[in-house]
Amino acid sequence: MTTATVSHAAQTAQWTKKDLLGLRELSAEEIRLILQTAESFREISLRPIKKVPALRGKTVVNLFFEPSTRTRVSFELAAKRLSADIMNIAAQSSSLSKGETILDTVRNLEALKIDMLVIRHAAAGVPHLIAKHSHASVINAGDGSHEHPTQALLDLFTIQEKKGRVEGISVSIIGDIAHSRVARSNIWGLTKLGARVTVCGPATLVPPQIEQLGVRVTYKLEEAIRGADVVMLLRIQHERQEATLVPSLREYRLRYGIDRERLKQAKPDVLIMHPGPVNRGVELDSDVADGPFSVILDQVTNGLAVRMAVLYLLSGSRLEEEPA
Amino acid sequence: MTTATVSHAAQTAQWTKKDLLGLRELSAEEIRLILQTAESFREISLRPIKKVPALRGKTVVNLFFEPSTRTRVSFELAAKRLSADIMNIAAQSSSLSKGETILDTVRNLEALKIDMLVIRHAAAGVPHLIAKHSHASVINAGDGSHEHPTQALLDLFTIQEKKGRVEGISVSIIGDIAHSRVARSNIWGLTKLGARVTVCGPATLVPPQIEQLGVRVTYKLEEAIRGADVVMLLRIQHERQEATLVPSLREYRLRYGIDRERLKQAKPDVLIMHPGPVNRGVELDSDVADGPFSVILDQVTNGLAVRMAVLYLLSGSRLEEEPA
Amino acid sequence: MTTATVSHAAQTAQWTKKDLLGLRELSAEEIRLILQTAESFREISLRPIKKVPALRGKTVVNLFFEPSTRTRVSFELAAKRLSADIMNIAAQSSSLSKGETILDTVRNLEALKIDMLVIRHAAAGVPHLIAKHSHASVINAGDGSHEHPTQALLDLFTIQEKKGRVEGISVSIIGDIAHSRVARSNIWGLTKLGARVTVCGPATLVPPQIEQLGVRVTYKLEEAIRGADVVMLLRIQHERQEATLVPSLREYRLRYGIDRERLKQAKPDVLIMHPGPVNRGVELDSDVADGPFSVILDQVTNGLAVRMAVLYLLSGSRLEEEPA
Repeated sequence: MTTATVSHAAQTAQWTKKDLLGLRELSAEEIRLILQTAESFREISLRPIKKVPALRGKTVVNLFFEPSTRTRVSFELAAKRLSADIMNIAAQSSSLSKGETILDTVRNLEALKIDMLVIRHAAAGVPHLIAKHSHASVINAGDGSHEHPTQALLDLFTIQEKKGRVEGISVSIIGDIAHSRVARSNIWGLTKLGARVTVCGPATLVPPQIEQLGVRVTYKLEEAIRGADVVMLLRIQHERQEATLVPSLREYRLRYGIDRERLKQAKPDVLIMHPGPVNRGVELDSDVADGPFSVILDQVTNGLAVRMAVLYLLSGSRLEEEPA
Repeated sequence: MTTATVSHAAQTAQWTKKDLLGLRELSAEEIRLILQTAESFREISLRPIKKVPALRGKTVVNLFFEPSTRTRVSFELAAKRLSADIMNIAAQSSSLSKGETILDTVRNLEALKIDMLVIRHAAAGVPHLIAKHSHASVINAGDGSHEHPTQALLDLFTIQEKKGRVEGISVSIIGDIAHSRVARSNIWGLTKLGARVTVCGPATLVPPQIEQLGVRVTYKLEEAIRGADVVMLLRIQHERQEATLVPSLREYRLRYGIDRERLKQAKPDVLIMHPGPVNRGVELDSDVADGPFSVILDQVTNGLAVRMAVLYLLSGSRLEEEPA
Repeated sequence: MTTATVSHAAQTAQWTKKDLLGLRELSAEEIRLILQTAESFREISLRPIKKVPALRGKTVVNLFFEPSTRTRVSFELAAKRLSADIMNIAAQSSSLSKGETILDTVRNLEALKIDMLVIRHAAAGVPHLIAKHSHASVINAGDGSHEHPTQALLDLFTIQEKKGRVEGISVSIIGDIAHSRVARSNIWGLTKLGARVTVCGPATLVPPQIEQLGVRVTYKLEEAIRGADVVMLLRIQHERQEATLVPSLREYRLRYGIDRERLKQAKPDVLIMHPGPVNRGVELDSDVADGPFSVILDQVTNGLAVRMAVLYLLSGSRLEEEPA
């Protein structure tokens, strides 16, 4: 990305929102703006010197109430490559253990004149609550079973990169639809950009009214795979799953696990996606996860570009403000 | 702050001490110099680009033997906004668990040619011991029930900001005086700058000879509130308190908790201060903590400026040394 | 170090390896190149502004599967003084706890386009496995009882600094030879550079075939001390030791502990070295550890220079690439 390119992206930007809380709240135009900005930032991580001064002197805080090395590291690196100052706060070791409320923690951070707050929390809606009470920009890095917008944005970016477009693409999301913030954010994003979405999983893990979001439902893996341009697997979070929802990992694999054999029913240019970390041998076999159709590691690479774009847009930075 | 302003502050500086261990050791002139320098730094955090190169190439280490997210983050951000390199060491995960002595840990850090060491420890005097054996500048970030000098400095800064002066101001400190390093540092700082200090709390939590430090003692909340320009609450650290000192939190609240009703006895322009985190509904009710008299969040903002000033003065940095 | 000096070191560099996995794999010339480069970097940490832009825009990750504050901090500071971006990942809190394999963790980091990976792991060979599957440069920061190359490099650097050379120097390594990665890396490095190496310890802690590495074996401390230019103590890791190998710490001290009395048998200019942290009163008495022959803290200082050199050489950085 040359300075001119960034400048151009910035000048055409129509970003007006303070926060990124979910894809439900975004218009198709706003989603496209993020993807287009990410496109400009993607190239920075391929340079010998992977750093631009775009967010110099801005302060970003990773406030993680749930542990997550992957997402934390991706945001941390995105901030560093934009030259922002970033601080990590793990809620376990925070003042919260001294009985402080979440809002008090946030007000205290805000009093330090921070610019952006990246929040992960086990309860749906916490980032929204914080955003309402904070002048800082809030980025939802996953709230309960609700939304994980930057994950869906990187998925959209990857589909667009590999397929040339999102509109008209047929995407099947397979797994625990009911408890997945990744599924929910992807459903919002994919349908807004005109993709055709199928969700598939055991009946116990697919919410009853989900069709109302504009998706097709099937409980049969074959139906989900056949004709799909993209097969997006969700992680079976067996450490959280209630015993009654899935009888056993072995049974889940038998009915919904993707192996090379089953993949033969898919289109010859199907994309295999997964938000990671993969349970090898459960929802996905190693020969598929590491095979030619898998774009799982491209998703990780694109996640960095998407998060740089989100930090950049929310910061309201314009090149004019930057030092020469 | 323009470059000229910093330069001016630096040129008039008479700072000669290697360490900041407590306010007991400082003269009124030294305290005023820190407050004046903090005044120059305050404005940096209000800029779009919150960063100056003052401490570029200096190394600061946060060595915390007691966990503290707030103070650690405040020092970390202060260092980053001054462009210093900062490393966080939580003593729990340090070599100390391999049986190394504190002095060996410090000598090892010093061998890495660090410039400043910010230390928090549960035992009084540890920062002094370390300072004596180290070439690096040591900043006491709280040692046992002894001192917490940067907290008192930010309190002084806040009083001066809101009241225009510290001299002649009447300050009442309420709570567990006996075990509070915040109280002790404030008593030293406030009396040196000419404030009139009252301490108030249950007889079990007020040290017998405390009048010798030049403060008035009362056990009645009304007497402490009446006529005070500043009411400074201390945190009841119920997780540490011995059962015999305070019968119950409920009883503490009944006798010493501040609510809107009790605050009516105070001056119409009283300031409510608290070092945080607040036990809402114990020493302070929410409608007071969040009310018009509260300057609790200003204290947090000012803490950043004060810590920037302390790092700057102790580093011995002069603008002449800095790169163009 | 002037820019010209670095430039010169870089221009004569013949470094071609992607990784630093052990000293076994290095030629004497490669070891000398690292020591020579470290010589250039040593001076940076003595400046008022301890920072050069050599690795600006490079990303280094400390991936520690075993906790180690000292080594982590040394690498972190080395990276920061070279202006690299560095991220710390403690494996305890990483995705590994979600059942992800090590290689998946590494592939994910690599997808973030990181440049260098500093790895510590309790199992021998893990850094080699990772290096084989990664485009990023891997630095072994200690793998099981196998190697700890940067520790041996800093030991070589310290001997050369104090004695003017390594060739022909007589070095006795004392302690648990069998389980020490420090001993193993030092044996490779010292013998390659032409030092004469003696190993000494209880028969249970000296591997049977160790002479094949070109070292002399003795079980008597007196024989190891007499005539040695350098006495290198190893840490007795009593927290790991099986009860049967050493009867007791008291007995170990009686037979192999170094005190002032025993040191009288050594050369008048003997060097006392220890990788730290020292068990005072076990393998080394305090009056020796802190005495005139001890270079233990010089080792720490030199470790920083050596790690800066290793990061610099592995990054493939040349001054031509750097911004003006």
